[in-house]
Amino acid sequence: MIPTSETMDPEKTDMSVFEEVESEVRSYCRSFPTIFEKAKGYKLWDRQGREYIDFFAGAGTLNYGHNESGMQKRLIEYLTSDGIVHSLDMATSSKEEFLSRFQDVILKPRNLEYKVMFPGPTGTNAVESALKLARKVTGRQTVVSFTRGFHGMTLGSLAVTGNAFKRKGAGIPLTGAVSLPYDQYNENIDSLTLLERYLEDKGSGVDLPAAVILETVQGEGGINAASFEWLKQVEQICRRYDVLLIVDDIQAGCGRTGTFFSFEPAEIQPDIVCLSKSLSGYGVPFAVTLFRPDLDTWAPGEHNGTFRGHNLAFVAATEALRFWETDAFSREVQRKGDRVKAALQKIADKHPDLITQVRGRGLMLGMEFPKEGLADEVCSEAFKRGLIMETSGPNSEVVKLLPPLIIDDEGLDKGLGILEESIESAAKKIS
Amino acid sequence: MIPTSETMDPEKTDMSVFEEVESEVRSYCRSFPTIFEKAKGYKLWDRQGREYIDFFAGAGTLNYGHNESGMQKRLIEYLTSDGIVHSLDMATSSKEEFLSRFQDVILKPRNLEYKVMFPGPTGTNAVESALKLARKVTGRQTVVSFTRGFHGMTLGSLAVTGNAFKRKGAGIPLTGAVSLPYDQYNENIDSLTLLERYLEDKGSGVDLPAAVILETVQGEGGINAASFEWLKQVEQICRRYDVLLIVDDIQAGCGRTGTFFSFEPAEIQPDIVCLSKSLSGYGVPFAVTLFRPDLDTWAPGEHNGTFRGHNLAFVAATEALRFWETDAFSREVQRKGDRVKAALQKIADKHPDLITQVRGRGLMLGMEFPKEGLADEVCSEAFKRGLIMETSGPNSEVVKLLPPLIIDDEGLDKGLGILEESIESAAKKIS
Amino acid sequence: MIPTSETMDPEKTDMSVFEEVESEVRSYCRSFPTIFEKAKGYKLWDRQGREYIDFFAGAGTLNYGHNESGMQKRLIEYLTSDGIVHSLDMATSSKEEFLSRFQDVILKPRNLEYKVMFPGPTGTNAVESALKLARKVTGRQTVVSFTRGFHGMTLGSLAVTGNAFKRKGAGIPLTGAVSLPYDQYNENIDSLTLLERYLEDKGSGVDLPAAVILETVQGEGGINAASFEWLKQVEQICRRYDVLLIVDDIQAGCGRTGTFFSFEPAEIQPDIVCLSKSLSGYGVPFAVTLFRPDLDTWAPGEHNGTFRGHNLAFVAATEALRFWETDAFSREVQRKGDRVKAALQKIADKHPDLITQVRGRGLMLGMEFPKEGLADEVCSEAFKRGLIMETSGPNSEVVKLLPPLIIDDEGLDKGLGILEESIESAAKKIS
Amino acid sequence: MIPTSETMDPEKTDMSVFEEVESEVRSYCRSFPTIFEKAKGYKLWDRQGREYIDFFAGAGTLNYGHNESGMQKRLIEYLTSDGIVHSLDMATSSKEEFLSRFQDVILKPRNLEYKVMFPGPTGTNAVESALKLARKVTGRQTVVSFTRGFHGMTLGSLAVTGNAFKRKGAGIPLTGAVSLPYDQYNENIDSLTLLERYLEDKGSGVDLPAAVILETVQGEGGINAASFEWLKQVEQICRRYDVLLIVDDIQAGCGRTGTFFSFEPAEIQPDIVCLSKSLSGYGVPFAVTLFRPDLDTWAPGEHNGTFRGHNLAFVAATEALRFWETDAFSREVQRKGDRVKAALQKIADKHPDLITQVRGRGLMLGMEFPKEGLADEVCSEAFKRGLIMETSGPNSEVVKLLPPLIIDDEGLDKGLGILEESIESAAKKIS
Repeated sequence: MIPTSETMDPEKTDMSVFEEVESEVRSYCRSFPTIFEKAKGYKLWDRQGREYIDFFAGAGTLNYGHNESGMQKRLIEYLTSDGIVHSLDMATSSKEEFLSRFQDVILKPRNLEYKVMFPGPTGTNAVESALKLARKVTGRQTVVSFTRGFHGMTLGSLAVTGNAFKRKGAGIPLTGAVSLPYDQYNENIDSLTLLERYLEDKGSGVDLPAAVILETVQGEGGINAASFEWLKQVEQICRRYDVLLIVDDIQAGCGRTGTFFSFEPAEIQPDIVCLSKSLSGYGVPFAVTLFRPDLDTWAPGEHNGTFRGHNLAFVAATEALRFWETDAFSREVQRKGDRVKAALQKIADKHPDLITQVRGRGLMLGMEFPKEGLADEVCSEAFKRGLIMETSGPNSEVVKLLPPLIIDDEGLDKGLGILEESIESAAKKIS
Repeated sequence: MIPTSETMDPEKTDMSVFEEVESEVRSYCRSFPTIFEKAKGYKLWDRQGREYIDFFAGAGTLNYGHNESGMQKRLIEYLTSDGIVHSLDMATSSKEEFLSRFQDVILKPRNLEYKVMFPGPTGTNAVESALKLARKVTGRQTVVSFTRGFHGMTLGSLAVTGNAFKRKGAGIPLTGAVSLPYDQYNENIDSLTLLERYLEDKGSGVDLPAAVILETVQGEGGINAASFEWLKQVEQICRRYDVLLIVDDIQAGCGRTGTFFSFEPAEIQPDIVCLSKSLSGYGVPFAVTLFRPDLDTWAPGEHNGTFRGHNLAFVAATEALRFWETDAFSREVQRKGDRVKAALQKIADKHPDLITQVRGRGLMLGMEFPKEGLADEVCSEAFKRGLIMETSGPNSEVVKLLPPLIIDDEGLDKGLGILEESIESAAKKIS
Repeated sequence: MIPTSETMDPEKTDMSVFEEVESEVRSYCRSFPTIFEKAKGYKLWDRQGREYIDFFAGAGTLNYGHNESGMQKRLIEYLTSDGIVHSLDMATSSKEEFLSRFQDVILKPRNLEYKVMFPGPTGTNAVESALKLARKVTGRQTVVSFTRGFHGMTLGSLAVTGNAFKRKGAGIPLTGAVSLPYDQYNENIDSLTLLERYLEDKGSGVDLPAAVILETVQGEGGINAASFEWLKQVEQICRRYDVLLIVDDIQAGCGRTGTFFSFEPAEIQPDIVCLSKSLSGYGVPFAVTLFRPDLDTWAPGEHNGTFRGHNLAFVAATEALRFWETDAFSREVQRKGDRVKAALQKIADKHPDLITQVRGRGLMLGMEFPKEGLADEVCSEAFKRGLIMETSGPNSEVVKLLPPLIIDDEGLDKGLGILEESIESAAKKIS
Repeated sequence: MIPTSETMDPEKTDMSVFEEVESEVRSYCRSFPTIFEKAKGYKLWDRQGREYIDFFAGAGTLNYGHNESGMQKRLIEYLTSDGIVHSLDMATSSKEEFLSRFQDVILKPRNLEYKVMFPGPTGTNAVESALKLARKVTGRQTVVSFTRGFHGMTLGSLAVTGNAFKRKGAGIPLTGAVSLPYDQYNENIDSLTLLERYLEDKGSGVDLPAAVILETVQGEGGINAASFEWLKQVEQICRRYDVLLIVDDIQAGCGRTGTFFSFEPAEIQPDIVCLSKSLSGYGVPFAVTLFRPDLDTWAPGEHNGTFRGHNLAFVAATEALRFWETDAFSREVQRKGDRVKAALQKIADKHPDLITQVRGRGLMLGMEFPKEGLADEVCSEAFKRGLIMETSGPNSEVVKLLPPLIIDDEGLDKGLGILEESIESAAKKIS
C-alpha cells in the first residue's frame, strides 16, 4: 500500500517531528497516523494508550507476537551479562548455539541438508547473496522471476521484483532478470508451458537462466498462493534444465503458512532458500541464506557486510526455535488459518459485489477488492476501530491478514469483527 | 582481509559447528579462530576466558566500545517495559526521540539541514537509497565512484565499489558507475583535473553523472585519507556541473576521525550522507540516509524494507548522542589519534624496509606493508598475543587500526606494544 | 543453418583460399561448397560452369533476380557518366529521385505518410535507428520482441533477436528487451493476452516498453507467419498503451509476401518500418527506416554513418520501383506463391512422417522437418542437384523457399522437382 | 559537425524533396546545401554545374578520389558480364581474388598474419564483430576505449564512442565500456600510467578488460594523433595484462596517414584491426575485420549479415590494391601531407588569435579554432567558395582536411587558398 496524504488523519496525534525531519519516503506512518509506544503479543498501544489488534505483524516479522516473553528474558539476560553483541562473522557462542539448534530443530527433522550463510541482517541481503551464488555456480546471468513477485529494494533484488513503482525507483535499468507469469496469473496462459518453452527453445530470446526465484505465497504481490502441483512442476522443469530453484521464504516462511518452510507441503526441495523477517522471532534484523552443500563455492569474504553477526538476533532466534520442537505450533497455525479463511469467505459471500476472492494459506490471507481505493479505505476504517492491517497487490487491491501466529481465537474474532464493520463502512464511503 | 586456511590456527578451539554448518563465505572466524562470548569496552573474552584488546571495533561499528553501560541500561529498560521493537516505518516514541535528538545534537549545531531517511538497517541500504535518490532527482544514471572505494555488497553499492574480488562476486556486469582515481592515487595523475575534464568534455565518453560518491577516508580500501583541499575541490566541481555529492560516512563517520561527520574539517556540505556502523552505538543494525530537504522527492514507500523501524537501535542511538553534547569527546579522539599516529610513525621509522607509510585521520589509521602476506601475518601474530586487528587494501597490504574511541591510554599502549612485537615476529616469518 | 564440416563436400572445388585466409565464421560457403562467378535472373553459375537454380535469393535480397537488366543498364550508365557514388547524407540527384519515386509509387498509393531515414546500408542499421528513435520519442527503454524474431547482429538488434547461438555471440548481456511469445508459439499460451497483461499490470515486472518490434513473417526464425488478426490485435494493444509498433520488413517486405509491405493485407499501419535486403533491387547494400512524421524528433546527425549515401543503391532502387507501378507484379507473386505452396503441401502429404507443416505467405515458404539434421540434409542434397536453398529455425529444422519473385513457372517446377528428389534422398540417409 | 538551420543557405537550390520527405536526422546536406550530380578525382559538380574541390573525401571514404578510372572500368566490366553481385558469405571468384591479393599486396609484405572476416559492409559492423570476438576469446566483458574516440552508431560501437550527443541517441545506457584519456588529453594526466594502474590495481573499480580499442589518429574526435611512443606503450601494457589491442583503422587506414595501416610507423601489431571506408576504393560499402589466426574462435555463422558478400566492393577493392604494389603512392601521400601541414602551419602562424593548433598525420589534418562556431563558419565560407570541408571534435572546433590522396598539388594549393580566404572571412563574421 502506498498511502497518500488523503489516507492520513493528521489531527489525531502531533506527528510534526516526523513530518519535518523524516523523509517523504515514510509510508506506514501515514496509514497509521499515531505514535506507538508499547506492544505485547498481538496488541500494540499508542502514546494515548489506545490499544490496537495487530493483523499486520510487522509485515510478517512478528509471527511470535511482540515481545514474546521467552525471548525477552533471554535477551535481557544476554545484555545484562555483557554477551558480545556485534561480531561480524567471527565465531561466537550465541551463533554456535543458533547454528546447532537450527540444524537440530529445523533442518534435520525435515531431511534438509543446507549450509547456512549469514548474508547481512535483512531479506534483501539474503536475496542478493542467493542471486550471486546462483550466478557463480552456473556461470549464467539471467534469473527468472515471476509477475507480482517481491524480493527487496536493493538493485539485485529489485530486478527480480515485479512492482513497477518500486522498480522505477531504481533510476537505472534493472538487468539480469526475466519476469514470467506466476501460477494462475491468467487463465489463458499456461505459465508452466511458457517457462518450459522459454528454457527449451533455442530461439526463445530468453537466455538459459542461472535460477528461478519465487515465493510460494506472494505477500506483497497480493497474497497469491501457488498450487503445490505448480511448485512441483517448476521444480521439475528446473531440474530438467539444470537451473537452480530459489525459494524466497522471507514472508511466507517461519511458520506463516503453517509449516516452518512454506514449501514443505509442496514436497519440493529448493536449491537455495532465503529466510528473514520472523527468523529472529523478536523483530530484530536477521536473515540467512540456505543452500545445498555442493553449491557452497563461496570464497571467504566474497560476500560480506557489517551486521552479519547480530548476536541479539542469534539469541532470540535460538529461543524462537522452541516453537518448532514439536508439531503442535504448526497444527495450531493451520487450525487458525482455516478458521480465519472460513470467516473471510463468509464475509465475502455476503459482499460478492465488493470482494472477488479470498485467498492464501495458513495465516497469510487476503481478500481482493477490485474497486479502486476500497481496500485502502477498509484498512483506514479498521485502523480507526483499533485494528492494524495493510493492503497488498500492485494496485493495493488486496486486504492482507497477517496476524501474529500466537494470536488466540478471541483476538482473531475481535479482529474479524472489526474487519467486517470496516468493510461495510468503507463501502459506503467509496461507493 | 581474506583469510585462507593458511592463516588459521584450527587446533586452538573446537570450531566444528562453524566448519560443518556455516558457509565457506565466512571470513573473520578464520583470522580469529576462537569463539567469543563476552565483551565490554575495548575488550573481548573468548570461551576459554582469554582476553583480547580490540583494535578492530567491529570494523568501525563499536566506536563507543562493547556494551557501553549507558546504552545497555536503556536497552534493558526498553525491553523490560515491552517497548515496541519492530515497527516498519510507523511512528514510535523511540524513533521520535531519535529524530529530535539527532536534529538537536548533531545537525543544528553543525548548521546542517538534512532530511532523515531510514533506508533499512545496514550501510548498503543507505548507499542504495542514496544512489536511487540521486538518479531520481537528476534524471541521470551514471555515478562516479573512486578507486579503492567500498560501499557495500548489494548490486547497486557493489557497482560503486572498487575491489575486483568483491565485484566479481556479482556474477553479472555492474552498471551505472564510473571509477575515477581517488586523491593521491598516483603522482602522475591529477585526479581533480581528470574528474573535471570528464564532466566538461562533451567527447569524454563519460556520461554526465547523477552524483559523485566518496569516503573521506577509505576504510576497506587501505586507510586512504583524502586531503581537505581535494574534498573541497571535488565539492566545487560537483557544484559547477550540478552533480550531487554523496559522502559515504559509514565507516569514517560517527566520530571515527575525530568529528561526528568525517567531512567537517574539510568544510564541505555533501548533498547526501550515508551513516551506519557506529550510528546505533551498540553494534545493532542501523543506518540513515541524510539529504538536503529540496532533494526529498521520494514518493511514499518508493523505497522500503522490513527493518527500517528497529527500535532497539533508535533507543541506543539516542543514548549514544550524549557523547556529542559537548566537544570533549571529539577532542579526546583527536588527542588519541595523534598519540597513536606518532607511535605508529615511530615503529615505521624503525622498520623502513617493512613499512612504507603510516596514514589516516583520528582513530582510523593504517600502516602499509608492501611485502605480500606480511600485513596478514602481523594481524595473525597480534591475535596470538591477544590483539584483534584486521588488514585492508586490495591486497590486504595495510594493517588497520580502529580501536573503540572510548579506549584509554593504557589500552592503546598495550595494543601498540603487541603490535610492535607482532611486526617483528611476522617479519621474521615472512622474510 | 549453421553448416559444419560434415555438411561440406570439399573435394569438388579448390576452396583453399577461403579456408586459409577467411575467418572460421564463414558459413554459407560450407553449405554451398563451390565458387560462384555469374548470375542472372533465378540462376547462378559456378567456376566450373555448373548451373544452379536459386531458391535462396540472397536470403531475400534478390527479389527481382540477379542482375536484373533494367537496373543493370541504369547502373552501368550511372557509373559511366561519373555519377557521384558516395555522398554521405549530402543531397544528390539520384537520392532525390529515389525519395520522390518512393513517395509516389509506394507511400502515397498506400496512404502511408512516412518520413524516410537513411540509417546506413544494412538491415541492422535500420533496426538500430528504429530502436533509438522509439526510445527517444517515448523516453522509455524496454522494447518487446518476439520468440524466434531476427533483427540483426549489432548489439541493439541482437538484443531483440531470439536465437540463443547468435545472442551468445554478443559476449555481454543484451539489455533493454523482453521476449514474448509470437503468434501460434504454443497452443496453451495466448500470446495477445500475455502481451496485454504485461503492459497493463503494474506488478508484471515488465517495464512499460517504448515499442514492440516484429516481423509479420519470421524468416530466420522458421517461416512463421502471424495471422492478420494477431497483427491487428498487437497494433491495437500498442495503441492502447501508447507503445510504438515497429515492423521489421527487411526480409518479408519489398514484395516477398505478395505486397510491397508485408503488413498491407493485415491492414495495420506501423509507426516505424525497417526496409533493406531487396530494397536496392540489385543486391547492393541499402536500407531505410520509415516513420510517422510526428515521430521525427531526430536532431541533425544524431545517428550517422559513412555509407548512408550509397548512390548506386539509389539508382537501382529507383529503377526497381517500376515493378510496383501497377499491381500486376504483386498479383503474379501471389499466384506463384499459391502454386508453390500447393506443391509443397502435396509433397508434405506424401511424407507425413518427415514433414509436419508447410507454412508462410507469398513466396516466403517453409517446410518443417522435425527430425534432427534432416532439413540440412535436404538442402545439401538439393545443392548437389543444382538447387540452392537454406534452412531456418532455431534448430535449422525448416527448409526455406525464397525464390526470386521474377522466377517463371518453369524454374519453379524444376526447383520443386529437385526439392522432392532431395527430400527422398535425404530421408534415406538420415533415417 | 552538427549543422543547424542557421548554417544553411536554403535559397540556392530547391531542396524541398529532402526537406519534406527525408528525416530531420539529415546533416551534411544542411552544411552543403546543394544537389550533387557528378564527381571525378578530387572534384564534384552540383546540378547547376558548379565545381567543388573535395577536402572531405566522404569522411575518408574516397582516398583514391571519385570514380577512379581503373576501378570504374572493372566495375562496368563486372556488371556487364553478369558477375554475381550479392552472395552473402558464399565463395565467389571476386572474393577469392580480393582475399588473395589482399594477402599478397598488404599482409605478407608487412609480415602481418591475419585472418580476414567480412562482418557486414560498414565500419560499425567491423567494430561490433571485433568487440564480440575479443569478449569471446577472453571471456571478459569490459572494453577500454578513449576520450574522443569514434567507432560507430550501433549499440556496441556507440558504447566505445566518446561523443555525448551521439551516445545520448542510444536511449539506453551503454554498457561494457570504460573511457580512458587518450594521448595528450591533458598535460596533468599521464594516460599510460592511468591505464596501467587501472589494469594492475585490484581495487581500481575497472574490471580487467577484454580489449583496448583505439584509433591511431582520431578523425571524428578532432584529428588527435597519438604519438608512436604512446601507441607502443599501450601495446606493451595490453601484452602485459593479456588484453587484446584493437585498432579501428576505418578512417585513418587505407593510406590516409601515409601508410596502408596507420599503425605501421608505430611498429605495433594489433591483435584485431577494423577496416572500412576507403577499403572498397570506390565509395561502395565494404568492411573487414582482421585478427590473429589464433583468435579465430568463431563458430560458423556466429556473426552474420546480409551484405557480407558485396561483390562490387570485392572487385573495386581488389583493383584499389594496385596503389599499394610499390611504396610510391605511400611516399606521395607523405610528401603531400607535409606540404599541406606546412601550409596550414603558415596560416595558423598568421592567425594565432584564431587558430591554436595544426595537427594530424599524412593527409589527415586539422586546425583547431577554439572560438565557438568559428570552425563551422570557416567550412560554410569555404563551401560558398567551392571547397568542401567539414569540422570535427566534440564542439565542432576543428576544421578537418581529408583531401583524396590522389589529389595533385594544384588542387591542394587551390583548396588551401580558399581555406585561407574562408578563415579570414569567417573571422570577420564571428568576431
